[in-house]
Amino acid sequence: MKIILIGASGTIGRAIDAELAPRHEIVRVGRSGGDVRADIADPASIENLYAAVGAFDAVICASGKVTFGAFEDFTAGSFELGLRNKLMGQVNLVLLGMKHIRDGGSFTLTSGLLNDDPIREGVSAALTNGGIDGFVRGAAIALPRGLRINAVSPTVVEESLPAYGPYFRGYKAVPAAEVALGYARSVEGAQTGRVYRIGWSRDA
Amino acid sequence: MKIILIGASGTIGRAIDAELAPRHEIVRVGRSGGDVRADIADPASIENLYAAVGAFDAVICASGKVTFGAFEDFTAGSFELGLRNKLMGQVNLVLLGMKHIRDGGSFTLTSGLLNDDPIREGVSAALTNGGIDGFVRGAAIALPRGLRINAVSPTVVEESLPAYGPYFRGYKAVPAAEVALGYARSVEGAQTGRVYRIGWSRDA
Repeated sequence: MKIILIGASGTIGRAIDAELAPRHEIVRVGRSGGDVRADIADPASIENLYAAVGAFDAVICASGKVTFGAFEDFTAGSFELGLRNKLMGQVNLVLLGMKHIRDGGSFTLTSGLLNDDPIREGVSAALTNGGIDGFVRGAAIALPRGLRINAVSPTVVEESLPAYGPYFRGYKAVPAAEVALGYARSVEGAQTGRVYRIGWSRDA
Repeated sequence: MKIILIGASGTIGRAIDAELAPRHEIVRVGRSGGDVRADIADPASIENLYAAVGAFDAVICASGKVTFGAFEDFTAGSFELGLRNKLMGQVNLVLLGMKHIRDGGSFTLTSGLLNDDPIREGVSAALTNGGIDGFVRGAAIALPRGLRINAVSPTVVEESLPAYGPYFRGYKAVPAAEVALGYARSVEGAQTGRVYRIGWSRDA
């Protein structure tokens, strides 16, 4: 398969690349590097990405920004980064990619556990991830041509603990290589409308 | 308690009013009628609402618009009504209301089943409802002064079947009076961070 991997140079992106590259053709995408450059927050940039890549079988997005911080300091503006980048950025990858992706292709988005297992500083992430999970379930039954869509919802990644550990005290971390399995399951499997929780369960 | 009820003249709003008015003071809010007029999609209008009402103990929002339609016809713009009205409108009720609500007060928002139990025309509703459910769980552990927040997530309402029935074939409807119990449970109970599913369950 020809797979567009957005966020290819990130911690999770590199692990996805390592998991899938032995079996597939990977088009590596980043904001400032990779085979093609694109910014998911900019719909025109997404259009340019699809025009540059040509026909493909799968899109994986392992990128998405949200604002972390104390809720009491939040304004409506504090939610905009999450809405424009991680949420609508990924939605636009699907909306614009639907026209280009081959029959039976798949979209795999990234959410995260914070909408079900929240932390104090993560109210925008909770909203954003909930939106992604809902979108994936809704879009799965509305996509044409046998197209599929799933989300991977990881807990905190071991390799990110130096940066994020203080926010996630008491959370068991998983290696990025284990998170990467969720993307393989989505792209190489047959399921749709699933949220693959990696390293946590909803009733935890 | 003094309870601000937004969407008071709607199908669910009238049932909430009937449930709570015998025990509480209700400030009825609508876009074009009620004790105070306000539009949740306009933050300035929300500010004016809180300035007009003075001290209060609870906010219930039983209002929120999203776009329904065929996903293949959707553009990024098709999601904006849901993002600005039902999602960020309700988030802004909390962000702006936090400064005015009495200690121990509560916010009760409205989502709906479509993020977990989707219909073809409801992709924007699925995204929006997922965002609301996630926001409620995230905000619940971040609110100060003993403030609480919950969502009510109803299935389709019996009284709305003439308008929405064709979208919900095979769904069991519930009377608005039963949906209203979810709001009473949120406002008059002690729980926080809950999504009260009325007439459906997540594993259905």
